[in-house]
Order: sequence, then structure tokens, then C-alpha cells
Amino acid sequence: MTLTRADLAKLDAEDSLAPMRDKFVLPEGIVYMVGNSLGALPKTTADRMDKAVREEWGQNLVTGWNRDDWVSLPYRVGAKIARLIGTKADEVVATDSTSINIFKLMVGALPLRPGRTKIITEPGNFPTDLYVLQGIRDLLPDRVTLEVVERDRLLDAVDADTAIVLLTQVHYKTGEIFDMTEVTRAVQAKGALMLWDLSHSTGAIPVDLNGANADLAVGCGYKFLNGGPGAPAFLYVAERHQNQIQPPITAWFGHADPFGFGDEFRPAPGIVRNMTGTPGVLGLTALDASLDLWADIRIEDVREKSLKLGELFIDLMEERCKDYGFTLASPRGDKRGSQVSFYHDNGYPIMAALIDGGIMGDFRAPDILRFAITPLYQRYMDIWDAVDRIASIMDKGTWQNPEFAKRSAVT
Amino acid sequence: MTLTRADLAKLDAEDSLAPMRDKFVLPEGIVYMVGNSLGALPKTTADRMDKAVREEWGQNLVTGWNRDDWVSLPYRVGAKIARLIGTKADEVVATDSTSINIFKLMVGALPLRPGRTKIITEPGNFPTDLYVLQGIRDLLPDRVTLEVVERDRLLDAVDADTAIVLLTQVHYKTGEIFDMTEVTRAVQAKGALMLWDLSHSTGAIPVDLNGANADLAVGCGYKFLNGGPGAPAFLYVAERHQNQIQPPITAWFGHADPFGFGDEFRPAPGIVRNMTGTPGVLGLTALDASLDLWADIRIEDVREKSLKLGELFIDLMEERCKDYGFTLASPRGDKRGSQVSFYHDNGYPIMAALIDGGIMGDFRAPDILRFAITPLYQRYMDIWDAVDRIASIMDKGTWQNPEFAKRSAVT
Repeated sequence: MTLTRADLAKLDAEDSLAPMRDKFVLPEGIVYMVGNSLGALPKTTADRMDKAVREEWGQNLVTGWNRDDWVSLPYRVGAKIARLIGTKADEVVATDSTSINIFKLMVGALPLRPGRTKIITEPGNFPTDLYVLQGIRDLLPDRVTLEVVERDRLLDAVDADTAIVLLTQVHYKTGEIFDMTEVTRAVQAKGALMLWDLSHSTGAIPVDLNGANADLAVGCGYKFLNGGPGAPAFLYVAERHQNQIQPPITAWFGHADPFGFGDEFRPAPGIVRNMTGTPGVLGLTALDASLDLWADIRIEDVREKSLKLGELFIDLMEERCKDYGFTLASPRGDKRGSQVSFYHDNGYPIMAALIDGGIMGDFRAPDILRFAITPLYQRYMDIWDAVDRIASIMDKGTWQNPEFAKRSAVT
Repeated sequence: MTLTRADLAKLDAEDSLAPMRDKFVLPEGIVYMVGNSLGALPKTTADRMDKAVREEWGQNLVTGWNRDDWVSLPYRVGAKIARLIGTKADEVVATDSTSINIFKLMVGALPLRPGRTKIITEPGNFPTDLYVLQGIRDLLPDRVTLEVVERDRLLDAVDADTAIVLLTQVHYKTGEIFDMTEVTRAVQAKGALMLWDLSHSTGAIPVDLNGANADLAVGCGYKFLNGGPGAPAFLYVAERHQNQIQPPITAWFGHADPFGFGDEFRPAPGIVRNMTGTPGVLGLTALDASLDLWADIRIEDVREKSLKLGELFIDLMEERCKDYGFTLASPRGDKRGSQVSFYHDNGYPIMAALIDGGIMGDFRAPDILRFAITPLYQRYMDIWDAVDRIASIMDKGTWQNPEFAKRSAVT
């Protein structure tokens, strides 16, 4: 198979998702493949933010909490995310950061498994999850032990003393996907709870938390959801657990009657108790606007295009760059999330040179080059152009210019 | 003394802060006295947000973390707040919500007072502080007891078993101010730590945390700092405690080497360890922009005008509304923060009628009407107009229209 750029232009012309690209702001002259770190700006978001700032805040002032319904924004945004991750609308809320939500759900769910002390996760995945668990272990040394187990032996470690297992479904470096249904079933078979981190799943692959009978989940708003830098995160609590979970940060927006201003905390029923302080309206508004882009598209179609783009990228890299020492770090086919990663011993200067040449991926120590696949705003032709430029940089050895090894920031 | 509107116009003409008003967006036809709940929109903030969304996010995408220095935004904002609360620039960081920051500092500072189990606060102040402490007590029953003591007996309750005292410096209902220096000294004399909630202090009155030798503090970004709805909060840790405090939510932005992506959490030195997840850039940007308004003004001048406006409001209310059942709930003179509150048995429908008439204050159950004094955007004439309209509504009995008692939201 030798594809040409014209073949890819044809695929773009036939692509039912192609019109989505025009809904995003994309700078000229680059191929953006870092949507798994920060998604691109939807054009409607810019206008919506302008309205939120100048009209809602500027003109309505404090009455915006009611008039513009800021007060329900965490739940309205949650309901839009629910549609992408296979849950009921009132099982998800957008709030705080992924790290804080892991802390809240993990500590809050311990009482659901009284007498069990073990929490389990894997090493080498996105580290904030591990860091939060280490903090919980140190905070509650009499109640929690932490076991960090490689993924191939992880399910064997789940036992009658295991309270909760936390896993990031799509690996942040390699893109490898855990089988959510199978893992959840195995963990629950031992009586433990399953907490999924969907940071690299949401908006990237179809997720069916209810279908998998998942207990708890968290996820990120600023990657494939395009919610803006540091966008609010979200959390999911299965309906059956909502009135049992005891979130440790008990604050006024999680109170059953927040505007009663009473002195005693009473947790709200349902998902609401997982709220903490006053929600950040500006960040939530940007996330809300970006989620509206999903109203008319199906995640299954996004996934289908993502797999095609990803496989194409791998094929072209193997065709054009096979002699340059790249080793595919991602699985082939549907075991891979919406990114393609390669190992390379000189990953750092190579990525610096690629960015300099307008191909934006990112580098993760010690040796991974990541390229995000974002079907909402990537064309088949972009994949061609990316590999074409990567090949050119490798052919010419541009990356060996010592300047690139000294770049202080590679996205 | 019988003042006329012309007298107040003269005060405005002589007011050195008068030009500040034009830096804010203020809707026509209302007197806004809810700046202690949500501050008004600075005009520069609207433009700055537009730039952050369209240029920084839209054009620079993920490189904004370095190119636009998003990564240091929590500290740059913290340094601007530091100037208003009498601390070193690197003792403050803007992050998370006030509730979450209370949780982090309270739990994180317990190891500084090993063997002491008691935390103390007062009843009846802004309740999220109490709620968070109740959650900590329930989370750590073997290590923490919570004593809630009325303010006139509170210092007597501080003893050799007391670890930390938490107080909101300016009372959210009455505006009464604790003497920070005196209370801090008394608490520390018993060997305990003092944690100040500055939500109603920052940008409202001069605060000198270093001068008072305070240990810890938190505060709010969306009230007198005008940072926008649900703006990020801030926290302060005195330099002498920074490397001892052990924040319980250990997440990647608090790591000594966050972009090393290692599996073991190592707390960053200094204030940085109090960070948690990825900072919310849009919310921080709005707060950053609003803080620039303070660059050329002195908080002492703001305070002087605040006291004059507040005393004027009280005087005019006593002159014009003395027969209508209002009881002053705030102290006179410099014991009062930047608000004036009255008790009234019919506070709810009265406030609803005032808002309907363009005088925006707020109501706090069961019987408090609050009016914020915000010298950056209030004129002496506004105070006249406010009382004039309050008097008219009381004279006519407008508030007795049963519609007002049924209003579902009174700001």
C-alpha cells in the first residue's frame, strides 16, 4: 500500500465529521497533536465566555446565580458529560480537579467497605493518581494500605481485604485501554469497588460506566472535552452508592440546604454531596460551551475516525520512518485510545525539532513521543502532513542541531 | 446634622478614589451593595479574558503553559494578594476554593502540633468553615476533637490540648472584626496555631498577617477582590511553617518535580506543596486582572473611604428610617468591616422590595439585611440614593405587597 496525499484528501471529502473542524480555532501552519493535554478552543466557547463575563457577571452581577442559573452549572455540565460516559444525568457532576475528586471519592467510599484496608493501583500511569493515594495512606495509616501492582498481576492482588481499586482506563503514555467491563467485574467479584480515571477516555472512546456496572469515576475537562486550560474535572458516583458515600471535604455546596446557613453539616442526597466550595463559574462555562459541540455527534463515529487516523499515522510512520529508531509504544487497533506513542532514545530533541517544524506532539520522560488523535479537528491530510514533516526532519537530521536538546520546554 | 444630596456630591468631587468607579462595569439604575458576595466586573478583566481565551488558549494552545506562563499564575496572583494582606510574596498562592484550602491547611498543620487534638472555632459565622471542620473531626476521630465556642468565651477554651483555632476575621453577617494581633497572640500563647479566614477582609480592610505573626490563612477571590463568580481562593502559610506542613491532598502540582512524572510523591519546598491538581487558568486570569486595579491604590485609603461611606449609611438610615424597625447589627466605627447590616423581622420581603427598587443588598436568614460597602465603585451619592429609596419603600409600605414575600431568590 502506498498512499498519496490525494487519497487522504478523498477520505476528508467523504468524512461525515469533517464539518466539525470549522467549529474550532486552529492556528495556521501547524498540525496540533496535543489534544490529549489541552484540547483546542471551540469558536462558540469564545463567544460564550464573552457573554458570561460581560453580560452575566458584568450586568447581572450576583443575581447571575439564579438568573443565569450558575447554581446548577455543575449539574448541567455533568449531565452533558454523562451522555459521553454512559451514565444517568444525575450521576455526574463537574467540580474541582481530577486530583481532588480522586481524594474525595477514594476517602468517601472507604466506609462502603468497612473492615477492608487495601487500595490498589498500578505504577507508571499518570502520577497524580498515585500521589493522591500515597497522601491518603499517610493520612489514614490505621485504615489504609496502598498496594501498587503491575497491570499484568494487578487483578491477582485484589482480595478480601481490598476496598477500592483505582485505574486510569487509557494509559497516558501508551494509550493502552483496560477492558472496563472485565476489570470491573473481576474487582467486584472480590467484593471491592472500582474507581475509574477517565481522563484519557472521555470524549476519546465510547465509555459505558453503567453498562460495566462501575462504582465510581473521575475525569478531566481540558483534554478531549476541550474545556480550556485547567478546566473543572468531573466525578461519577453510581446511583446505588450516592447516599452512602461520605466525602471528606464537607463544604457548603454539598450541604442539603446550603442557603439555610445552619451550623451543622448535613450532606445533600444524591450526587450533590460531592460538591465542595463555591463552583468556578467561568471555568465551568467554558466546559459547558465545549460540550455543546457533542450534541449532534455520536462518540462511536468519533471513535471510528480516531482508529482510522491512528492506524494511518502508524502505517505512514512505518513506511516513511522505519529506519530512524522509532518503536511503536501503543497497541494497534481498538486496544488503543485516541493517541499514538513511540519510544525513541532521542525523543526529547526530536520532539523539539518537530514542534519547531510545526508538528505539535509532546514528550514524556524518559523516552516517549506522544501524538494525540482528535477527530473533531484533525483531517486525514493532517496525518499525512505530520508524517511528511517528521520524515523530512529525520531524513535531514535536523533534530541533531544541539539547540533542540537545550529547549527548556517541549509542550 | 442634616445632609443634602449636594453635600454628598461635593464629597464625591473631592474623593481621590472617585476615578476608580469608571474602571468597573456597573449596570444602569441600580445601587450595587452586594460586593461582599460578588464583586463587580473590572473593565480590564473583560478584555483580559478575551485575550486569554482567543489568543492564549486559541492560538498558543498547550504552549500557553510556558509562553503565557500559566504555570506560574497561581504564584503571580498570590504575590498580588500578598501585598493586600501583609505577607511576603511567596507566602501566598491562589488555588482551589476557600473550603478546600481550609481542609488542606487544617489537616496539613496538625503534624505541627503533635499530641494536641483540639480544634476550635465559633458558631454562627460563615458555615462552610464549620462544615469543613466537622468533616475533619469525622474523618480523624482519634486525632481531632472540635470545640465550637461563642466568641466571648473562645479564648478561654484555648488550652494545652489545642492544636489550631480557625476564625473568620470579619463576621459575614454583622461585619464585626476580630483584633487579629490580639487573638493571634492569645492563641499562640497557649502553643496553638492560628488560621484566619480572610474572606470578608481581603480588599476590604488593611490586613497585616506578618505583623500579627499569623500562622495560616485562607481567603476568597470573588468578593472584595472582584475576581469573578466562583473565582479561585487563596491560602497563606507563614514561611516558618512552609516546609513542615503536610497537605493531605498530595497531587502533581504540589510535587517537587511535577514534570518528572515519577511514581513517588515528594512535596515541593515552600508554598508550592499546597497546590493540588492542574490550576484553572481562566478563573485565575480573571482574578489576576482584577488584582491589577490595586497596583496604584492604598488599602488604607480604601478603608478610610469605606468607614466614611458606612457611617454615612448608618447615619442616614437612623435619620430617615428610625421608625421602621431596623436594628443596627454592625458595630459603629473601625470595629466594622466593609459592610453594614441591620436586623429586621420582615427582612426577607423588605430586601425583595429593595432589590425590585434598584437597591441591591442581600438577606441572610433569619433576619439580617446586608449592605456591602465597596469604595472602589461606590459614590457618596450612591449611599444617599440607597437610603432615599429604602425610606421611600418603607414610607409607602411597598414591601408589604405579598408578592415580595414569595420571591424565590433574594440575591
